[in-house]
Amino acid sequence: MTRAESTRRRIVVTAARVFCEQGYAASGMEDVARACGLTKAGLYHHIRSKEQLLFEIQSYGMDVFEEQVLRPAAEHAHPLRRLEDCLERNVLLLTKRRSQEIAVILHEHNTLKGDARARINARKKRYVRFLEQAFREAMRRRLIRRVNPRVAAFSFLGMVLWIYKWFRSDGVLSPERLAREMRALFFDGLALETQPRRARP
Amino acid sequence: MTRAESTRRRIVVTAARVFCEQGYAASGMEDVARACGLTKAGLYHHIRSKEQLLFEIQSYGMDVFEEQVLRPAAEHAHPLRRLEDCLERNVLLLTKRRSQEIAVILHEHNTLKGDARARINARKKRYVRFLEQAFREAMRRRLIRRVNPRVAAFSFLGMVLWIYKWFRSDGVLSPERLAREMRALFFDGLALETQPRRARP
Repeated sequence: MTRAESTRRRIVVTAARVFCEQGYAASGMEDVARACGLTKAGLYHHIRSKEQLLFEIQSYGMDVFEEQVLRPAAEHAHPLRRLEDCLERNVLLLTKRRSQEIAVILHEHNTLKGDARARINARKKRYVRFLEQAFREAMRRRLIRRVNPRVAAFSFLGMVLWIYKWFRSDGVLSPERLAREMRALFFDGLALETQPRRARP
Repeated sequence: MTRAESTRRRIVVTAARVFCEQGYAASGMEDVARACGLTKAGLYHHIRSKEQLLFEIQSYGMDVFEEQVLRPAAEHAHPLRRLEDCLERNVLLLTKRRSQEIAVILHEHNTLKGDARARINARKKRYVRFLEQAFREAMRRRLIRRVNPRVAAFSFLGMVLWIYKWFRSDGVLSPERLAREMRALFFDGLALETQPRRARP
């Protein structure tokens, strides 16, 4: 990483924190500059505009998500293992690493416009399609009952991504425990443990 | 309803639409006044401040939610019926009636401060406790397996409330179908239909 690249990364990470704390619309470039220990002119040397900064934060958040969640989960050939691994990794990303870039993606889902919006949305849609395909494959292989893949995908996403709104790392509920509980809830359901479960590989 | 009350209601509903479209922080009282067909002075005759307006929108959204979801669902003595009815009603509230007041509650979850925030949060927490108690009761009566009631409640909420972010009433997926699918997904799980289900009343 060059020095300019590492300054840019520091700006992106710091701005994500500022936007999380104050909200994007309520934050000015002065606030970001101050939090970075830069002058406003110094900040504009690296970043063209607040919109550009929001796009860079969301792009970086998607990089982190794809690297830590999507890519490793996709390696499982078995569609249920793929989904379960994906759910646990996504929960851990939101709780353990507390990625504020991800929170900015989730909260400012409607803020970017034009080409920047299209580019982030394309990456989000790739995640939705990844989930839908895994649900379809699990149905075809008779590992789960017939469900609407779109509803299943967005139910999975809602359960997992809502975490950014309520989870506090106060130690009562550990990230690992939450990941396990949510996996069991989503994949094994609420059926009593004494009853037979779905087919396991 | 007096004339002043009905004007106030109209302001609250219109402002909810403005805040949904433009975002709360990016909206000015001019925008709200214009959308209501009022002068800014006319608007301030009814509402003290933008914060006051946000509080009134969220209060009205909670009224609608409690009347259409919580109160009727609470009438079921059977804890699973209570939870299932609650889930379906909440999905329908978010999709069919497209209540923008509810979207403002969900999106601006971190915006209110002080007493206003405490009052809205107390009503939200009542919903969480309602769900946790129903899960606990269902466990006690051995209707479902042992789960962490907090995780179950927030998983239920995430699945359902995320709808405001992705659902478009384009006719492909009807509100009723979505409500049925989500209920089945959450309560019956992904287990194959040929396997025995959990105990039914």
